[in-house]
Amino acid sequence: MTEPTITCDTLSFEVLANDGNARAGVVKTARGDIQTPIFMPVGTLGTVKGLTPEDLTDEIGAQIILGNTYHLYLRPGLDVIELHGDLHDMMRWDKPILTDSGGYQVFSLKELRKITEEGVEFQDHIHGSKHMFTPERVMQIQETLGSDIMMAFDECPPHDASKKYLRDSLARTTRWADRCLSARSRSDCALFGILQGGIDEDLRREHADMMLDKPFDGWAIGGLSVGEENSAMYEMAELSTGLMRDEMPKYMMGVGKPDDLIECIYRGVDMFDCVLPTRNARNGQVLTSRGAVTIRNAHHSHSLEPLDPNCSCYTCQNYSRAYIRHLYKSRELLSARLCTIHNLHYYLELVRGAREAILEGTFTQYRRDYYAAQVEDPRER
Amino acid sequence: MTEPTITCDTLSFEVLANDGNARAGVVKTARGDIQTPIFMPVGTLGTVKGLTPEDLTDEIGAQIILGNTYHLYLRPGLDVIELHGDLHDMMRWDKPILTDSGGYQVFSLKELRKITEEGVEFQDHIHGSKHMFTPERVMQIQETLGSDIMMAFDECPPHDASKKYLRDSLARTTRWADRCLSARSRSDCALFGILQGGIDEDLRREHADMMLDKPFDGWAIGGLSVGEENSAMYEMAELSTGLMRDEMPKYMMGVGKPDDLIECIYRGVDMFDCVLPTRNARNGQVLTSRGAVTIRNAHHSHSLEPLDPNCSCYTCQNYSRAYIRHLYKSRELLSARLCTIHNLHYYLELVRGAREAILEGTFTQYRRDYYAAQVEDPRER
Repeated sequence: MTEPTITCDTLSFEVLANDGNARAGVVKTARGDIQTPIFMPVGTLGTVKGLTPEDLTDEIGAQIILGNTYHLYLRPGLDVIELHGDLHDMMRWDKPILTDSGGYQVFSLKELRKITEEGVEFQDHIHGSKHMFTPERVMQIQETLGSDIMMAFDECPPHDASKKYLRDSLARTTRWADRCLSARSRSDCALFGILQGGIDEDLRREHADMMLDKPFDGWAIGGLSVGEENSAMYEMAELSTGLMRDEMPKYMMGVGKPDDLIECIYRGVDMFDCVLPTRNARNGQVLTSRGAVTIRNAHHSHSLEPLDPNCSCYTCQNYSRAYIRHLYKSRELLSARLCTIHNLHYYLELVRGAREAILEGTFTQYRRDYYAAQVEDPRER
Repeated sequence: MTEPTITCDTLSFEVLANDGNARAGVVKTARGDIQTPIFMPVGTLGTVKGLTPEDLTDEIGAQIILGNTYHLYLRPGLDVIELHGDLHDMMRWDKPILTDSGGYQVFSLKELRKITEEGVEFQDHIHGSKHMFTPERVMQIQETLGSDIMMAFDECPPHDASKKYLRDSLARTTRWADRCLSARSRSDCALFGILQGGIDEDLRREHADMMLDKPFDGWAIGGLSVGEENSAMYEMAELSTGLMRDEMPKYMMGVGKPDDLIECIYRGVDMFDCVLPTRNARNGQVLTSRGAVTIRNAHHSHSLEPLDPNCSCYTCQNYSRAYIRHLYKSRELLSARLCTIHNLHYYLELVRGAREAILEGTFTQYRRDYYAAQVEDPRER
């Protein structure tokens, strides 16, 4: 293990209030503050699908977005991004960006990738060309993207992997973590470590023991929301946040549904990302304070109600379910945009409300009210 | 012929300046003034594809949009639209809307429609259900839509129709025009008549003779831009505007390319609509002051230039060709939106510039400058 020579001097974190295990805090970065708990909209290819940066700030209140290293590396490619300056400059987003390490995508390629101690050799899903991702290369790519929060290169093992495989994988991910720390060259790009261990409590503890004394700027819980039971996900979240030092931001990767946000905030998570609100929006699935609504359903065809009568977003302030259903059924582009604005606004309001409740010491009530508002509507199944 | 009992009391037109045959004027409506010459973005299904009403007003400067009667009648259907009030209320567009008569679409159905003196019976292209459009029904539909400018129900004959067929068609369109005038019931919905006659000068004159004394609120030139030569289109435009009374707005339906706008303004046309700027935008074809640009072309992959260096639109003020090309190649929704904003802005600026030149008596120079700026770039073919 080489000693890291660079540490981040632009990111800091402060916990402002605790309410049970739930926390309200602020992550300070050179590109602005992030009020936690926070949800990060996913902008895979340098755009949160269908939205402009102005939509994200003015209509949704996004404070940080996520970019996908693997996808951006392939399209448009680092040379094009670097030409603009960095990812912020290309897409005109001047607030913080967190980038993943590409590990999740690369390991999903299954037959098209080969893992060695050095890294992962893979054929990409677009051109079929061969590439090599190593911890060093992945740090270099994320620094080129100008990421405000980079993620260490880790293996996200399949959720049915054997205990033997998982132990080997955790050891390798730990060695890769050291190489990531050694490879960083920019003090203005924070770097978060990732805890793995599947849904095995022993392995989670073992990996935390190996990792948590390393000089990362924050910690993530990886390898969840990959098909396991909700209860297992929540147990692992609680276990992991309990092991992490409280003065560090705690990020749950790839999670999740609104219920998951509430449950993981309750268990001490500060940061979330997920494609669900944006992807579902494009499929006409909207999330509301009363539960999910499938806009194509016939019973919305003559509804003058907004998607969510309790919502203050642009979509709900202006358009009826009948109109949005018509746009969706007619495959109009505006349908995706209006539903995406609504869904992301809903997520950001959910975490903003949670934060306020934590600051006031009423998060237990907030959680209870959240569930009480859900309406079981068999027509939406 | 029944005498019309209703006339429009909300629309008026004033010519402010002539420059050769070109005119600058203003169409006043209850929902706001329209500075002519004007281009009307097409909002087929109750949305200009990908844009909100705020985009149309704030980013593009649209003053009036077009809705398609046939398409809206089928989707979402009149009952849904009426539930909101009218089309303005459903789509939240409070400026004027011009609706076509559905004639063009119905006649395009070819094997699926049958023309009688009464009207047109057709099977729609979505469900295959049978419908009947008559002049009376089409007036009723457009009044239900709350159209500020309705179009008379006419036949748009195929451009290779025989002279005998065209003469019968013109006579029928003329009888239908009378029935449209008799059928209107709202004094706040203006009604424009349509002159047909293909590219035959005699027929154009004959139809003008039959039609031009009828109490329409404005006149349209129909049946052009359907495959004929440009020169024939321009000749028919010049002939038709010359026959129409000068105190009436003159509207060229379904036209056209930027060149066509310049040439038809030069020949006295006041109003235009066309799907070209919006459709081309979605296909990555952008129109600029220097000519058309195909954004997918490889030579834009590393270009930091905006789509048009002379353009002040949101897209050109913020994004590079390299980024927009990346979005287009990755099939990102934002590509369509950014290119649509640019193309419509370009069209609206083109007619705004023409208007200014006409007011200053320099339209000949404006037209010359327009052509001089076009760059022949073989890479864009």
